[in-house]
Amino acid sequence: MGLVVQKYGGSSVADAEGIKRVAKRIVEAKKNGNQVVVVVSAMGDTTDELIDLAEQVSPMPAGREFDMLLTAGERISMALLAMAIKNLGHEAQSFTGSQAGVITDSVHNKARIIDVTPGRIRTALDEGNIAIVAGFQGVSQDKKDITTLGRGGSDTTAVALAAALDAEVCEIYTDVDGVFTADPRVVKKAKKIDWISFEDMLELAASGSKVLLHRCVEYARRYNIPIHVRSSFSGLQGTWVSSEPIGDKKVEQAIISGVAHDTSEAKITVVGVPDKPGEAAAIFRTIADAEINIDMVVQNVSAASTGLTDISFTLPKTEGRKAIDALEKNRAGIGFDSLRYDDQIGKISLVGAGMKTNPGVTAAFFEALSDAGVNIELISTSEIRISVVTRADDVPEAVRAVHTAFGLDSDSDEAVVYGGTGR
Amino acid sequence: MGLVVQKYGGSSVADAEGIKRVAKRIVEAKKNGNQVVVVVSAMGDTTDELIDLAEQVSPMPAGREFDMLLTAGERISMALLAMAIKNLGHEAQSFTGSQAGVITDSVHNKARIIDVTPGRIRTALDEGNIAIVAGFQGVSQDKKDITTLGRGGSDTTAVALAAALDAEVCEIYTDVDGVFTADPRVVKKAKKIDWISFEDMLELAASGSKVLLHRCVEYARRYNIPIHVRSSFSGLQGTWVSSEPIGDKKVEQAIISGVAHDTSEAKITVVGVPDKPGEAAAIFRTIADAEINIDMVVQNVSAASTGLTDISFTLPKTEGRKAIDALEKNRAGIGFDSLRYDDQIGKISLVGAGMKTNPGVTAAFFEALSDAGVNIELISTSEIRISVVTRADDVPEAVRAVHTAFGLDSDSDEAVVYGGTGR
Repeated sequence: MGLVVQKYGGSSVADAEGIKRVAKRIVEAKKNGNQVVVVVSAMGDTTDELIDLAEQVSPMPAGREFDMLLTAGERISMALLAMAIKNLGHEAQSFTGSQAGVITDSVHNKARIIDVTPGRIRTALDEGNIAIVAGFQGVSQDKKDITTLGRGGSDTTAVALAAALDAEVCEIYTDVDGVFTADPRVVKKAKKIDWISFEDMLELAASGSKVLLHRCVEYARRYNIPIHVRSSFSGLQGTWVSSEPIGDKKVEQAIISGVAHDTSEAKITVVGVPDKPGEAAAIFRTIADAEINIDMVVQNVSAASTGLTDISFTLPKTEGRKAIDALEKNRAGIGFDSLRYDDQIGKISLVGAGMKTNPGVTAAFFEALSDAGVNIELISTSEIRISVVTRADDVPEAVRAVHTAFGLDSDSDEAVVYGGTGR
Repeated sequence: MGLVVQKYGGSSVADAEGIKRVAKRIVEAKKNGNQVVVVVSAMGDTTDELIDLAEQVSPMPAGREFDMLLTAGERISMALLAMAIKNLGHEAQSFTGSQAGVITDSVHNKARIIDVTPGRIRTALDEGNIAIVAGFQGVSQDKKDITTLGRGGSDTTAVALAAALDAEVCEIYTDVDGVFTADPRVVKKAKKIDWISFEDMLELAASGSKVLLHRCVEYARRYNIPIHVRSSFSGLQGTWVSSEPIGDKKVEQAIISGVAHDTSEAKITVVGVPDKPGEAAAIFRTIADAEINIDMVVQNVSAASTGLTDISFTLPKTEGRKAIDALEKNRAGIGFDSLRYDDQIGKISLVGAGMKTNPGVTAAFFEALSDAGVNIELISTSEIRISVVTRADDVPEAVRAVHTAFGLDSDSDEAVVYGGTGR
C-alpha cells in the first residue's frame, strides 16, 4: 500500500461544494489502496478577510497574534473537509500544524520548517483514517507558539510531510492543469509540461513562474520527493517534477523547459560611483543591512575619462522605497552622484538544462527578441537559464516571440524537432 | 497586586469597533494595578456561520471535527483582541484553550473541564502581559484532541481559570447590566440585583434565567470564586454572585431573589400506567438510556377503580421527538395506554433563600397566580424555589403578577418592606 500526500489550495475548497468535490477525489485515492494524507489551505478569501480584520484593529499587528489569527483559516477548511469525507463513509481526522508535528523556527509570518515529527499522523493512518492537515502553519520549537510559513506555505507543508512520511508522491492540486511552457494567460499556445526536473523547476520558480514556489521545490529536491502538480477540477495527468522521469514513461528531457516572466521587480541604478575596489560592496552591504533581497546586478564598464561607473540592480517593487531610503542615508559613505528608480521593467527568462550543451540557445534567444523589436536593458545567466530585463510593456510580446522561436507552441511539434537538432 | 479574570461574550466583540472598545476596558483594569486574564468568545455570529457551513458539508458532522471547526471562532477573536491591546501600548498574548491548560474529558461538543494547568498563563502574567484566552474550548486528557464545552462554555472557562489562578474576582461582561429580578423584556419594572448568593443564582439558572449558566455558577461555588456580572457597554456596577456580600457593602439578603421563567420545555404524559412498583423506574430508565435530561416529574394519585395512573414529566422541547420514540419503542416493556405530548407549556419559578423560613411565600405565590387568572398544571418545589407549569401563553402575565406581588417592582420599595415583614 502506497502513501500519498495531496495538497489542495484555497480555490479548490472555496465553498461547501468545492469541499465536497475535493472530498470525493480524496476518497478515490483511498479506494485505490493508498494511505492518504491531505494538506489543505484556507477557504477562498478567508485569509484576506482575516488580514482585513487585523488591519481594522491595529495598523501593525504583532507577528505572534497575526499568526494565531491566520491559522484559524485552515482550521475551518480542514475540519469541514474531514466532515465531508466522513459523510462519504470513510474515516478522517483533521490535525493542526502543531498536532501534525510541523516544528518551525520562531520567525512569525514567514517561519521555516526545521523538523517534522508526524507521530499522530502515522497513528491516524495506521488506524485506517485519512489524515487532514492544516497547511501553512506550525509550532515554534522554543516557545511552542503558533507560526505561519508565509506565502505558498501549504505547498511546503505538503512536501515536508511527504518527506517525513516517506510518501511515494506529493500531489499539489491547483486551479490549472500543471506547469506550462509559459504563462497561458500571456501565451495562448503554451503547452502543459509532462515532466520537468527539480533544477529546471527551481529556475522557473525563481524567474516568476507562480505554480510552485522556490522553497517548496527546493525541499522536494533535497528529500527527493516527486511532486505531481495537477488540477482539482479535472481528472487529467498534470506535471511531474522529479529528479528522473517517473515510472515506465519515457519522457525525453526537453532542451528548453519553458519561458517565465516577472513584472514584479523594479530597477535601481546608482549613478556616478567611483570605479575602485569596495564600492559595490558598500552598496550591497547597505541593501543587505536593510534586509532586502536583490535579484540581478550589472556594472557598466567605467568611462575612462571620468573614472566613474554606474551599478544597476533589480529588486521587488515592494522593497523599492526602503532601498532608496537606505542608499540615500548612506550616500556619504558610499559616494555616488544620484539614484535612478525605474519600476516599468519586466524580466523574461528562458530555462532548460539542455542549454548547457547547446551553445546556440543564447544566440537564438537574442535573435528572437531582436526580431520582435524588443530592447534589452540587462542580461543575467546561469548554467540553465538566460534572463533579460526589458520595458514592462514589451514583456507579453517578448514571451510569445521566444516561446515560438524555441518551438514550444502547442500546435506544432517544433519542441521535439528542436530538441533533436542539437542547436 | 490583584489578579482579575474578565470574560467578554460574542456580542461585546461583534466587530472591530467592539474589539477596540473592549481592549480599552481591559487596559483600564491593567492600569488599575491588576494582573489581567481575559477569556473571550467568538465574534458575534461567527459560531452560527461555522455551524451553517458544517451543515452544508455534512448532515451529521462528527464531534471531533465539529469542535475543531468551532474553535476557529475564538482563535480569531482572541488574536484580534491581543492585537488591539498591543496597539494601545500594552503587552498581550493570546492562548488557545489547550495552551492555557484547560484539560477536559473526551465528550466532544459538551466536554467537561477536569483540570486546569495554567503554567503558560502564569508565565505570561509574570512577564507583564495581559493574557487572552479562548473561551469554550479545551484539550482532551487522553487523546489530546480539541474539545468544546457546549453552550455558555466561555463563562465556565473564565470561572475555571479564576479558580486555578486564585483570582480575586471573575468578571463576566455581557450586553445587560447584570442579573435582574425577572427578565426585563417581560417585566419592565424588573430591578438589577446588586448581590445574590450562589445558591439562589443556581436556582435561577436552573429555572430559565439566561444570564449565567448553571454549570458556571456551580463551578464558582465549588471554588468560592466571586462572579461580577456586568455590562461591557456601560461602566456600571453589575450583580455580584458570591457566598457572602463582597467588601464593606452591607447588602441584606432579600427573601426573594427573583422570578425566572422558561418556555423551552415540553410536557409528556404517560397515560394508563399500572400503579405498581417499578413502573416509574421503567419509564425513566428508558428516558435516561436515550440520554435525555428531564426536569419536573409528577405522578397523579391512582384512580382506585382502574389501578392505573398517569405520569407526567417535562423536558427540553428539542428532546421531545427522541423521548416519544424511545418510550414507544419500549411500550411493551413499560406497559401504558398512550402518550400525550404538549409543547405549549411554560414554567414560572420563584427563587429565594428566604422562603425556607417564610412559610407565607408559597401561599402568596399561588394567590398571585390565581388573582391573575393563571391555571396551574404542575408544581415542583425545592427548599429555596417554587416552580409551576402553566400554559405558555400565560407566562408573561404570570411573571409580572408574581413580580409585583412580591414587591420586586423597581419604582416601589416593597421588596425591602416585604423582607422586613417576615411573611
